[in-house]
Amino acid sequence: MSHGVGLPRGFRVAGHACGIKSDPRTLDLALFVSDAPCAAAGVYTQNLVCGAPVKVTRARLPRNTARGVVINSGNSNACTGDRGIADAEWMTAAAAELVGAAADDFLVCSTGVIGRFLPREKIAAGLPVVASRLGSTPEHLEVAARAIMTTDTVPKIVTRKLTSGDQTWTVTGVCKGAAMIAPNMATMLSVIMTDARIDPEDTHALVRHAVDRSFNCISVDGHTSTSDTVLLLANGQAGPVPANLHAQLQSTMDDVAMALAQAIIRDAEGASHFVTIDVHGLPTRESAFRIAKTVADSALVKTAITGNDPNWGRIVSAAGYSGVPFLEQDCSLTVNEIPLYRSGAPVAFDAKAVSDAMATGEVRIHLEFTLGKESVRFWTSDLTAEYVRLNADYTT
Amino acid sequence: MSHGVGLPRGFRVAGHACGIKSDPRTLDLALFVSDAPCAAAGVYTQNLVCGAPVKVTRARLPRNTARGVVINSGNSNACTGDRGIADAEWMTAAAAELVGAAADDFLVCSTGVIGRFLPREKIAAGLPVVASRLGSTPEHLEVAARAIMTTDTVPKIVTRKLTSGDQTWTVTGVCKGAAMIAPNMATMLSVIMTDARIDPEDTHALVRHAVDRSFNCISVDGHTSTSDTVLLLANGQAGPVPANLHAQLQSTMDDVAMALAQAIIRDAEGASHFVTIDVHGLPTRESAFRIAKTVADSALVKTAITGNDPNWGRIVSAAGYSGVPFLEQDCSLTVNEIPLYRSGAPVAFDAKAVSDAMATGEVRIHLEFTLGKESVRFWTSDLTAEYVRLNADYTT
Repeated sequence: MSHGVGLPRGFRVAGHACGIKSDPRTLDLALFVSDAPCAAAGVYTQNLVCGAPVKVTRARLPRNTARGVVINSGNSNACTGDRGIADAEWMTAAAAELVGAAADDFLVCSTGVIGRFLPREKIAAGLPVVASRLGSTPEHLEVAARAIMTTDTVPKIVTRKLTSGDQTWTVTGVCKGAAMIAPNMATMLSVIMTDARIDPEDTHALVRHAVDRSFNCISVDGHTSTSDTVLLLANGQAGPVPANLHAQLQSTMDDVAMALAQAIIRDAEGASHFVTIDVHGLPTRESAFRIAKTVADSALVKTAITGNDPNWGRIVSAAGYSGVPFLEQDCSLTVNEIPLYRSGAPVAFDAKAVSDAMATGEVRIHLEFTLGKESVRFWTSDLTAEYVRLNADYTT
Repeated sequence: MSHGVGLPRGFRVAGHACGIKSDPRTLDLALFVSDAPCAAAGVYTQNLVCGAPVKVTRARLPRNTARGVVINSGNSNACTGDRGIADAEWMTAAAAELVGAAADDFLVCSTGVIGRFLPREKIAAGLPVVASRLGSTPEHLEVAARAIMTTDTVPKIVTRKLTSGDQTWTVTGVCKGAAMIAPNMATMLSVIMTDARIDPEDTHALVRHAVDRSFNCISVDGHTSTSDTVLLLANGQAGPVPANLHAQLQSTMDDVAMALAQAIIRDAEGASHFVTIDVHGLPTRESAFRIAKTVADSALVKTAITGNDPNWGRIVSAAGYSGVPFLEQDCSLTVNEIPLYRSGAPVAFDAKAVSDAMATGEVRIHLEFTLGKESVRFWTSDLTAEYVRLNADYTT
C-alpha cells in the first residue's frame, strides 16, 4: 500500500503512541499540518448520533484558512454530551497552538469506543511529542496513517499525481476503518490532502463527488457510525489547476477516494471475499444505489458468499425488499459473468463452476434491470464466523 | 410446545414425507382442511419478489368458502415464472379434489429453496397419502406442524380458548420459520384456525391486527422472504362470538400469533439470546417501530449481545441512523433495567453486572424518548458464528 506514496508539497504529518489504547506501544495520535492556509471541506456521517469531533469540525467547514487536523484513535468521543464538545474544542486549540495556528483553523476527528470521555491528560502530554515529529517523508506519512487505525491490519494511503507540461499536482489520501465492524470501534475516517490551488467554493463539491462514488458505495455491516468523516485540505502550493483540467482533477480525487474505499473493504475484519455489486438499468442513480446497498447489507447474501454458495434467490429477494418498485420480469442476474436468472425466470447453470469462481475471493454480482439508464457500483465484504468472533469478543 | 394444544372443531390435518426434501423420511407435505366452508383472510410478504403460492393464495382471499390449505416444505416455488404459477394452481386443484372441494376454495403455501421448479410427480403421489391420513387429534396436529418445517428444530403450535358461560371458541395456530435464516430456505408461514363464526369482512382486520403485533415485530436477519404468509381460517363450528366479546377474540388471536412469533425467535438458528426491544416515547408507532427494527437488524448490536457485551454505543448509534429524527438529549437507554445512557450522556455502570444479566440469555433493551406517547415491542435473536456456519454451508 505504501509503494509510491508521498505527501503533496507543504504538508507535514506525524504519529505517536500517547496511551489512549490499552497497549501503550500502539500509535493513537496523529497530526496532519499544512504550512500554508488551506481551502477545506468535509463530508460527515449521516447518523443523528454523531461524535463531538464531527460537530466541532462540521461547524468550522468549509473555510479558506484551515491549517490541519488532529486525530486520535481508541476513543471516538461520541455520546459524551457537553463535556465531549469541550474536549474536542480543547484538542484543536492545543494542537493549533503547537504549530502556531488559530484554534478555529484546526479540525478534529476521533475514532474508537463510543461513550467514554477522552483522556485529556494523555493527549495533552502526547501532543507536544507528535508536533515535534512532524515531517514530510513517506515514512512520516505511514506513521500518521497507522496512528489513525483501530482494528485495521494495514495502513491505507493512496497518492495520485495530475501532470500538465512541467506542472504536477499531487493528491494524497489516508483513511482508516472497515465501517463499524470492530469491537467497540466506530468508523471510517479519511484525510485527503492536495497541493492544488482550489477555489474554496469548489472544495465541497469536489469532495462530495468523490465520496459519493467511493466511501458512500461501501458497506461492511450497514451500521452507519457516529464518526465517519472525510476531509479535503487544499493548500495551493503547486498552484492553480487550469480550467481545462478541472475534470481530470475531479477524477484524480475520485480515484484516490475509490482506492481508499476499496482498501477498507479488502481489510474488512474477518472478510474472505471482496464483492463488487453492479446494478444497471434503473430510472435513477438513487434507486440503483438502494438496491445495491440492500443486497450488500443482507446477512444471507453475505453468508452465501462466505460459503461460495451460488444461492441467487437471496440476491434477487434482497432486491425485492429494497423498496424500489420493479416486476420480476424486469430483472436479470449474473454472478462472475455467469447468468443465473433472466427476465424473472431461473437459468440452468453449472453450480460448481459458479462456486469455483466465487472461491477465488473476488465476487461480481451484476443485477440488470430494464427500467432506465442509471447504474451504480458498490463494494462489500462477506460475513464470516471470524467477524462474529471479533465483534462479540469483549472482556468486561 | 405441544402441551395442551388441539384443533378447533371441524378441522382435520395431516402430514407426510413425499420426497421433496433430500432426506426421504423428512415430512414435507401438509394438509389443513375444514369440513365446513371458512371465512378466510391472509397477510403476506411485502417483498416484490414473491413466491407463486403467495400470488395464487392472495388472489383468492378474502373469501367465505375456503376449505383448506396445502403446504409443502423443501421448495418455495419462488422466482419460477409462469411455470411456478401453473404449479401452484395445480397443487390447489389436486388437493381440493381429494377432499371434495372446489380448486378456488383451496389455498397454497410453499417454503424452501428459491428458484427451483416444484417436483409435481412427488407431490401428485404424496397428496392421496396425506389426504388419507387426515385427522383431528393433537398427534395429527403435531405431524402437520412438523411437515411445514424447514430448519426449525421444534414444531410450533399454540392453542388458546375463549369461553363465555358454557360456550367455548378455540383458536389454534401453527407456524414455521426463523425468518430467512437457513441454508436456501425462505421464510415463515402460519395457519391460524378457529371454530368461531366470524363475519367474513372482519377476518382480514383480525389477522392484520394480530400480525402487526407479532410476526411483524420479529426479525432474525432482516431479510424479508419471498414466501411469508399468515392465513386465518374461521369455520364457525362453535358459533358466533357475541359483540361484547369481540375485543377478547382479538386479544386471543393476538396472543396466539405473539406466542408463535416468539417461538420462531427462540428457535432462530444459531441463536443464543432472546432479545426484547422496547421503544417508548415517540410521536407515532411507525417511528418507534423503525427504531426498534433498525436496532434489531444491526449486526453490531447482535454480535455485542452474542458476547454479553454491554456495548451500548452500538444501540444508540443504530437508533441514530434509523431515519427517525431526534436529538441525543431526547434519548435514554437501559439494558436489563440497568441505566447506561441518560438524556444524551453516558451513565457510570457496573459492566460486569450488565454482562452477567445478558448472559442469562434474556436481553431486554429499553430505549426511552421524550417525543411522544407511542411505543412498540419487538423481538430478535443474536448473531452467532453458528448462524454464519449454517448459512454458508452448502454443498455444490
